[in-house]
Amino acid sequence: MDKPQDKKWRTKLHEIIYEADTPAGKLFDVVLLIVILASILLVMLESVKSIDSKYHSILNISEWIITILFSIEYIARIITVRKPFKYIFSFYGIIDLLSTIPKYISLFFGGIHALAALRALRLLRIFRILKLARYLGASLRLLSALRSSRAKISVFLFTVVIIAIILGTIMYLVEGEENGFTNIPKSVYWCIVTLTTVGFGDIAPQTPLGQFIASLVMILGYGIIAVPTGIVSAEYTSQSKKDKKEEDKVKPPLHLNTQVCENCSTENHRDDAEFCYHCGHKLNDE
Amino acid sequence: MDKPQDKKWRTKLHEIIYEADTPAGKLFDVVLLIVILASILLVMLESVKSIDSKYHSILNISEWIITILFSIEYIARIITVRKPFKYIFSFYGIIDLLSTIPKYISLFFGGIHALAALRALRLLRIFRILKLARYLGASLRLLSALRSSRAKISVFLFTVVIIAIILGTIMYLVEGEENGFTNIPKSVYWCIVTLTTVGFGDIAPQTPLGQFIASLVMILGYGIIAVPTGIVSAEYTSQSKKDKKEEDKVKPPLHLNTQVCENCSTENHRDDAEFCYHCGHKLNDE
Amino acid sequence: MDKPQDKKWRTKLHEIIYEADTPAGKLFDVVLLIVILASILLVMLESVKSIDSKYHSILNISEWIITILFSIEYIARIITVRKPFKYIFSFYGIIDLLSTIPKYISLFFGGIHALAALRALRLLRIFRILKLARYLGASLRLLSALRSSRAKISVFLFTVVIIAIILGTIMYLVEGEENGFTNIPKSVYWCIVTLTTVGFGDIAPQTPLGQFIASLVMILGYGIIAVPTGIVSAEYTSQSKKDKKEEDKVKPPLHLNTQVCENCSTENHRDDAEFCYHCGHKLNDE
Amino acid sequence: MDKPQDKKWRTKLHEIIYEADTPAGKLFDVVLLIVILASILLVMLESVKSIDSKYHSILNISEWIITILFSIEYIARIITVRKPFKYIFSFYGIIDLLSTIPKYISLFFGGIHALAALRALRLLRIFRILKLARYLGASLRLLSALRSSRAKISVFLFTVVIIAIILGTIMYLVEGEENGFTNIPKSVYWCIVTLTTVGFGDIAPQTPLGQFIASLVMILGYGIIAVPTGIVSAEYTSQSKKDKKEEDKVKPPLHLNTQVCENCSTENHRDDAEFCYHCGHKLNDE
Repeated sequence: MDKPQDKKWRTKLHEIIYEADTPAGKLFDVVLLIVILASILLVMLESVKSIDSKYHSILNISEWIITILFSIEYIARIITVRKPFKYIFSFYGIIDLLSTIPKYISLFFGGIHALAALRALRLLRIFRILKLARYLGASLRLLSALRSSRAKISVFLFTVVIIAIILGTIMYLVEGEENGFTNIPKSVYWCIVTLTTVGFGDIAPQTPLGQFIASLVMILGYGIIAVPTGIVSAEYTSQSKKDKKEEDKVKPPLHLNTQVCENCSTENHRDDAEFCYHCGHKLNDE
Repeated sequence: MDKPQDKKWRTKLHEIIYEADTPAGKLFDVVLLIVILASILLVMLESVKSIDSKYHSILNISEWIITILFSIEYIARIITVRKPFKYIFSFYGIIDLLSTIPKYISLFFGGIHALAALRALRLLRIFRILKLARYLGASLRLLSALRSSRAKISVFLFTVVIIAIILGTIMYLVEGEENGFTNIPKSVYWCIVTLTTVGFGDIAPQTPLGQFIASLVMILGYGIIAVPTGIVSAEYTSQSKKDKKEEDKVKPPLHLNTQVCENCSTENHRDDAEFCYHCGHKLNDE
Repeated sequence: MDKPQDKKWRTKLHEIIYEADTPAGKLFDVVLLIVILASILLVMLESVKSIDSKYHSILNISEWIITILFSIEYIARIITVRKPFKYIFSFYGIIDLLSTIPKYISLFFGGIHALAALRALRLLRIFRILKLARYLGASLRLLSALRSSRAKISVFLFTVVIIAIILGTIMYLVEGEENGFTNIPKSVYWCIVTLTTVGFGDIAPQTPLGQFIASLVMILGYGIIAVPTGIVSAEYTSQSKKDKKEEDKVKPPLHLNTQVCENCSTENHRDDAEFCYHCGHKLNDE
Repeated sequence: MDKPQDKKWRTKLHEIIYEADTPAGKLFDVVLLIVILASILLVMLESVKSIDSKYHSILNISEWIITILFSIEYIARIITVRKPFKYIFSFYGIIDLLSTIPKYISLFFGGIHALAALRALRLLRIFRILKLARYLGASLRLLSALRSSRAKISVFLFTVVIIAIILGTIMYLVEGEENGFTNIPKSVYWCIVTLTTVGFGDIAPQTPLGQFIASLVMILGYGIIAVPTGIVSAEYTSQSKKDKKEEDKVKPPLHLNTQVCENCSTENHRDDAEFCYHCGHKLNDE
């Protein structure tokens, strides 16, 4: 279907956009990172009334520039990938679309308030660029420590929620509506605010009994804050040891790069891979 | 007393209700879990004035449905267990009864406010279903880490309370009634709020000296929050090591199941057990 | 000077009051603990206006009973000890006196407000009784973990204070008097409130720049809360290991008892000691 | 250029001012520390309106005394160092100048408010004196633990900021301007206040949905507070082990002193060094 020359061009663009192993690919990621951060700053500034009324036209133009840049990038991503529909309906494909369209929609329907939210989703795009970070041993170990203690943290959070519901109901009965504990959900909310040691103070117990129970809740919260910390700490320590043991082994560590298969978008190929380990497609190894 | 056929039926029901090793038993637990969570949601929604006034009849009917379901379950539990009185006066037996009766009582005495509290106790029933969780190594280890550091956490909490009382009295003298520290118990309450880093702000020191002492209290609190965390963390680390050592031993770990003795309600029998290890009653091992 | 019979009686009383190895000595400590806790409760209740006005006479009588009990104990302590002046001017001797006299002073000068503070010092007496706790390995290890990380925690707290002063001054300049940051000490106070994640909310930044700096302060506080926890945790872990190694050694641990030398009040003698290791006085070993 | 006798005098003064190995050098540092702390206290007291109006002249005189002392020290530092310009434009050289000039400027321009900030920078001078602290093994290990976990803490803080921005935007949409979430930056600020468990309470969610999301934010914050603690704790533990291993090695540790090269201001020379390891200048070893 495509001429070989054309394919060559598409392959090169694919490498720049989707990968970060070549200088051009790295530059693309850095530029994209800056544009995303600028777009987030823009969304924030626009929400500030005093700034928006003063610099409305500048903000509007900047938003259009970013929207056009994102549009070009979006189209380039669709063109260069082998299976465009797979990309379009992937997680990042949808995020990319949602990051781009709000301004176009506002053309037809005016500035709908909730569109700001869609634009904030642009932040999620950062994680794609930060795939680089995955190759830092540090964050990898951190993630695996979190993952392996996920089950325990869930059990812990579940217990916290149960405690909050029971104590919240008790506080609702003790303090009553006249002291701000107007209903059980609000009491449970207060209980979570207190257990997590946030303590807004918008609702606070007024009766002596309520304050006594609140004291118990706080000391309890103080005591159980130790649990997730202890878990992650221990898990992380054991992870470090495991890592060190593995490092001691003679086998050289397998290095994975950021190359993305043109055909199936699978990532993390070995440096010496010539074919995609997932679909068998020939990887372009210039 | 019972015909053998009838006994067979009762035995089967006992297995479904009290145990979680068969598909039917697991299904029963999952359904019960959903009903309990629904009942808690109902208690919460009912306490919200605006929702209650709008959907009063729906909430009322839902509450009746849940009450009837709980009644059926309660009766089934009494019928299938060998020693009904032992069940009725057990911790979970009482919780089950208290979860069921509030709606019946309200028939005779009208909607007494405090009955909502009784219904919130239904949450405690969750722990029975979650006996499954006990078989997850993770939570087991977490529990044993907490248990073995219980003594130290008690010493720690005791020290916190003493510090709170002494500093609370000092703050009462320094700030006085005109700044919200109306009496010593309230001052101690403030001190606990501050030491645990909750900080509601409903009471806050106003005098320079009071703010200086408050600063010391906060830095102290910041310093001693490290203690329980350090304890649990160290304890948990040593637990992990012990576990690993035990895993390294050749003996296969003893697997306990959720079977409950029909006669004495003892739980956690070995998979190969044929008789209850507590009362010697024959276990039904289909 | 004393008749042998009389000395026998004094020696016995000394053992009951100062030590906790005999049943009578333990009973004395438990009773004293209850009286101290009751006296603290009394001080607290007296400060609550509504309770004091209602039950003034009951509280007054109870206070007199406790004062008389403390007086008897104080005199008994002076009589039974060999060197009364050493006891009187020791830390606990002064605490004991201050715990006893407020009520007598109030006879002559009326109910002076600040005397309540003196009475709160009674709480410190608890630590004497809790010398028992010292023999629990748990708290010993906890204390030694804290002691060995004392230097590091000091360095850490010093850094926190410097950060608080610099950031407090900046916030004073940024927010100014109109937003509650009326002077630098108050700004530093706010900074400590924020760094320690207490967050009363009585003073809160209002300007965008102030809120931005506050965000940095909070994230900084979030980051450095990890430091003392990490220190204690690591120290405690290494303590545990050291302890285990020492336990593994064959030598039986030296057991120290709560016996107190009649002559020089030195504590912690070996179980097989016949003479005080400090002054050489013969210990009474019934 | 200089006579040998004069050089001798300058060398001696250099040793006193810049180093802390001789008694005179230590005394100089202690006096300087006291003067700096006094100057900071002065800056603080001056900002308190009521104190300033009462004791204005005393504060003014004290400030002049400190300014003159700092001026003398600043000149002495310039004279004794070989390359004065290198010192003047070094970090501490600028801090020293900024600590000295505010009072002189106020002579010409009157008491400018913002000059107080410059004076607060004097605190930074403490770190120079505390170079002594660097020689405490404890703080060294603490610093190296922090340094080696710097990368991970950055990744962590970055994640916290992203979470805060996304959740802040959601809260802005949910709560809206009428509940205090007037714009996205303010919402993000609230989110950081909540995630870090500070919880001022100046802005608090009012709608049920907002409170539900806030609960999630708080529990999330509660969960992730464990991460930096776990990191530092694990890092610190492994640091301790490494240190112990190094201590076990036979080689005596290399002792570095506080001597500063007269020529290039390089610090931390070996005790047996005769020439600066950086510029080769002869060190004066009396």
